[in-house]
Amino acid sequence: MEKIRRNERMSVMMKILSGAPGKMFTLNQFCELFGAAKSTISEDIDALRRVAKEFDLGEIETITGAAGGVLYRPQHSRESARTFIADLGRQLSGTERVLPGDFLYYSDILSTPEIVNRMGEILATEFENKRADFVLTMETKGIPVAFATANALGVPLVIARHSSKVYEGSAVNINYVSGSGNIETMSLSRRAVKENQRALIVDDFLKGGGTARGMVELMREFNVAVVGMGFVMATVNPEKKRVVGERSLMTLEVLSGETPEAIVRPASWLNG
Amino acid sequence: MEKIRRNERMSVMMKILSGAPGKMFTLNQFCELFGAAKSTISEDIDALRRVAKEFDLGEIETITGAAGGVLYRPQHSRESARTFIADLGRQLSGTERVLPGDFLYYSDILSTPEIVNRMGEILATEFENKRADFVLTMETKGIPVAFATANALGVPLVIARHSSKVYEGSAVNINYVSGSGNIETMSLSRRAVKENQRALIVDDFLKGGGTARGMVELMREFNVAVVGMGFVMATVNPEKKRVVGERSLMTLEVLSGETPEAIVRPASWLNG
Repeated sequence: MEKIRRNERMSVMMKILSGAPGKMFTLNQFCELFGAAKSTISEDIDALRRVAKEFDLGEIETITGAAGGVLYRPQHSRESARTFIADLGRQLSGTERVLPGDFLYYSDILSTPEIVNRMGEILATEFENKRADFVLTMETKGIPVAFATANALGVPLVIARHSSKVYEGSAVNINYVSGSGNIETMSLSRRAVKENQRALIVDDFLKGGGTARGMVELMREFNVAVVGMGFVMATVNPEKKRVVGERSLMTLEVLSGETPEAIVRPASWLNG
Repeated sequence: MEKIRRNERMSVMMKILSGAPGKMFTLNQFCELFGAAKSTISEDIDALRRVAKEFDLGEIETITGAAGGVLYRPQHSRESARTFIADLGRQLSGTERVLPGDFLYYSDILSTPEIVNRMGEILATEFENKRADFVLTMETKGIPVAFATANALGVPLVIARHSSKVYEGSAVNINYVSGSGNIETMSLSRRAVKENQRALIVDDFLKGGGTARGMVELMREFNVAVVGMGFVMATVNPEKKRVVGERSLMTLEVLSGETPEAIVRPASWLNG
């Protein structure tokens, strides 16, 4: 085999690492892949770490010791996150997307991969230190962003459903009060999570917090701790949500009138 | 600014390109990012193309001309796809995952990002030449793999629902006969797609094909052509599906008996 150059090794490692966020690779795996010495791979990784930092592409982390290795984490500075969310807010603001009942049409945004991946990475950056074992969402609209967050953290996604399905096996059902005041059911397969795990809740929309509280109660049934909650959008009203400690990427205010107008702003914590 | 080295430029471009599959970047964008000449960037890209090919990491495509640029496509050889799916099939086979009614529990597989991303890339490789404008799925279980496929193709995802929701605006509803023989409703927001677009259907499970046919009919209402259909799993029975030209990654056969056993195999087209 022709000798592989540093620029080739580094490009390949960047692709492999950034393609599987949170997944640990041993230095030996790369030594074998390239037929290179450990010291060479180590130097390559040091160079990758510096260049990832310089270009705000995320963090390449080395874990030393016998169980050690190298892994990639998408990281966004607050500043770049805020710029991105502010741009998105401008796209969503105005009169065109307001639906009857002061709802906002943004399903398109919630399923455009480039946007969703970025939102998932921003939420992952915010909650990375909570060491969640999985991301939990409630069907349907939040699934892509919850999946993107799980992907960025390198953990599985778990999807709660409105009713238990035959193809998910025995399930735990709970009732909760939805935003519209109805009693609804939330269901999760017994096999989906294990006792004493840590859950990060991610969903698209936070209004009163009824569904989010339902998810917290569902996790209690499984003896799972909820370590964080992230949403794409939170309404300005009601100001008081039935959950605490949540992070939303943007806030929605609808100014009523003959032609109602939406104002979508980046959340204030993105300033910090 | 210190001069940026080739290995640094190449690593950064690999990250940017492979992080946004199907998205075109102009050479000028990279010239500006690095303060480098076009000829230099061109050479970097040629080197990236060779190394991506050599390590089976996908394809870096250069489009020449005024509207040209460079883009990345995840590509998997049939052989590596088959190995991956065969491994997955072995994990899913056996008695432990069979549920009453000969269903198979595999929701965990359908929401583990590393697995889902790979399945999405395999489906994208297969359907890339169909030039779909978006990926269509029906809620719920297939959403992650449909999203991963959309991501790999660089197109949006569109999610049909069981009933129309207030926050999606006016919708088109159709009725269809589900696998269990019930009449069900499928709904899609009018804003979700445009006339004369091309849809790729992706879903988790193909049994009789009732839901898939429903999606085809739904697209007809929007004057949208269905250019392909990909599924994670297809049952061996019934052999005849109510759709044609579909591709499934694996097949499921359940051997009945006191302890029913699942046999999951990679689909035969993966041999080709």
